[in-house]
Amino acid sequence: MVKNPRKFVKRKQDEQTAEEMIHGILNGNRTILSKVITLIESSASRHQEQAQGILQELLPHSGKSVRIGITGVPGAGKSTFIEAFGRLLCDQGHRVAVMAVDPSSTVNGGSILGDKTRMEQLSRHPNAFIRPSPSGGTLGGVHRKTRESIIACEAAGFDVIIVETVGVGQSETIVRGMVDFFLLLALTGAGDELQGMKKGIMELVDAVVVNKADGDNIKSARKTMREFKQILHFLTPATSGWEPMALTCSAVTGDGIEEIWHMIDEFAKKTKSTNVFDQRRKTQVKEWLLSMIRDRLETSFYQDENIKELQPSIEAEVMNGTVFVQKAVDQLFSVFQSQQKKGQPQSCCPKNI
Amino acid sequence: MVKNPRKFVKRKQDEQTAEEMIHGILNGNRTILSKVITLIESSASRHQEQAQGILQELLPHSGKSVRIGITGVPGAGKSTFIEAFGRLLCDQGHRVAVMAVDPSSTVNGGSILGDKTRMEQLSRHPNAFIRPSPSGGTLGGVHRKTRESIIACEAAGFDVIIVETVGVGQSETIVRGMVDFFLLLALTGAGDELQGMKKGIMELVDAVVVNKADGDNIKSARKTMREFKQILHFLTPATSGWEPMALTCSAVTGDGIEEIWHMIDEFAKKTKSTNVFDQRRKTQVKEWLLSMIRDRLETSFYQDENIKELQPSIEAEVMNGTVFVQKAVDQLFSVFQSQQKKGQPQSCCPKNI
Repeated sequence: MVKNPRKFVKRKQDEQTAEEMIHGILNGNRTILSKVITLIESSASRHQEQAQGILQELLPHSGKSVRIGITGVPGAGKSTFIEAFGRLLCDQGHRVAVMAVDPSSTVNGGSILGDKTRMEQLSRHPNAFIRPSPSGGTLGGVHRKTRESIIACEAAGFDVIIVETVGVGQSETIVRGMVDFFLLLALTGAGDELQGMKKGIMELVDAVVVNKADGDNIKSARKTMREFKQILHFLTPATSGWEPMALTCSAVTGDGIEEIWHMIDEFAKKTKSTNVFDQRRKTQVKEWLLSMIRDRLETSFYQDENIKELQPSIEAEVMNGTVFVQKAVDQLFSVFQSQQKKGQPQSCCPKNI
Repeated sequence: MVKNPRKFVKRKQDEQTAEEMIHGILNGNRTILSKVITLIESSASRHQEQAQGILQELLPHSGKSVRIGITGVPGAGKSTFIEAFGRLLCDQGHRVAVMAVDPSSTVNGGSILGDKTRMEQLSRHPNAFIRPSPSGGTLGGVHRKTRESIIACEAAGFDVIIVETVGVGQSETIVRGMVDFFLLLALTGAGDELQGMKKGIMELVDAVVVNKADGDNIKSARKTMREFKQILHFLTPATSGWEPMALTCSAVTGDGIEEIWHMIDEFAKKTKSTNVFDQRRKTQVKEWLLSMIRDRLETSFYQDENIKELQPSIEAEVMNGTVFVQKAVDQLFSVFQSQQKKGQPQSCCPKNI
């Protein structure tokens, strides 16, 4: 299974070798899975290198899951919903991993999943694995870490992956790009609830679930659900061959929770039979590759010392209309390229000349 | 006005100097404007250089217009509408320039505005200037040429700029990024017309105009208009402080055309008073700068001979799940960087060593 285990060197007495970690994950050991995700999230280059070696070995064992993205405004009841939904699946014998892409955690260190006790019952279930959002770094970095963690969870035998996010910035588009099924959890209420909804979100979703459909709220939840149905009907489906659905549920009473799983199961069967499922996964991994190439090119440019110094003033001149865009680009690149050349003399001027 | 006219060298007897072209444009000469746009669209580096010099001089004279983007499926009657709308404005004393961003012209050489006779009456009006879509090159290239042509038209005194596009690929997002007001021209018909509409388009528009509201069609046009109004009500406005509107018109009878101009005029007044207008223009030019930097970085990467050779196989391995994304990126960049070093020996190894 591990082609060349000797290349992974033991670092400390209390650390597992990479080989031990790979075997641990393939045996479904949650403690080791946690440790590997910590390696994935570490910014230390030694950890990064080790994580990449492990992930390359885990890759052939990944992919056999349904990846579900869940978004919704704060207060929509995402954690209560995931707890109820996850427990149902775990009780049915599924193994459920929950993680988060949380733009706020990259800014202020807070996290939507930082407080594990939010899903106390689910986190104690032997079939569940809950991982708070990685903190620190850019949203692009969080994105990458989460994608890598999904691979590790799948190799550990988790067959339902839930990725939670809040509707901030680009986080929904990013999560849509790493899941098979994307679900918007909405609040019950009058039609006005729908107004001012985040741009583009309705066109990303495979289903809208109106939560808190219990007690006095049932009637208005159904009304909201019908309004969502009407909007969804007007839009091009996010997934080819799947008409986006609108449902209601109550995470508190459990009403409608099982129907949501039936819907996702039906979605997976249908899209697998038409090859849309596999095709999307291939496209997603290709787009991941292209976005990482773009990130690396842009990082090398914007981290360049001369660019850092020059950019603010040129940008201001462009925005004020005093310098033409093309001229600004030429100026920046002439500085960038001369800097690159200066930085690499050793590659073409051997010391023994 | 021209700081250093001597630097522009006369090439041929029948060519104007750059200085003559700048003065011609500032005097509103449409023939010279056409010639400058031909320079802008040329891919010859001599022409490019000359165009950039001219644009830098025209820049302070640009910007004093309302830029209107118009999109709609083929058959929505865009050219008939622009003809009726443009003639009304020209008769009122406005000077109207019409150009196109047409993704199809980059692929097959065809063009939505290739046939000038489509707007025969408008094209003969002394206050109008109609320019077919630039052909050839990438959509990013067309984008850049159109933005530069807008600057030239504004410097020539055109105070209404209309940018036409069809709903293909990214063209609507690109046009939204270069105009102040974005209008979707829609067909009259039943509610089903709305279904399957292009993703995200409704969230870019400041107004939807249902065309062909004449004869037996008036009733159903009004019904379609009300349906659009309802959808727009649910979405976040494209422009802060402007509730997107739905109207009907008939480009044939002229009904409703004047109301559309009143709406746009009102939009401009309102957004200028709140500074949203100027702020958007600044953001647009900044995004133009960033997108040109990104294009240039990606071009240098993907045009690299070694990358061209290696990319297809690595991409296939990533999509098949045999190579991990991070490893693929490392492989590509190690090849790219070594190639860059090899390509620049003269910069660090003087010949006289």
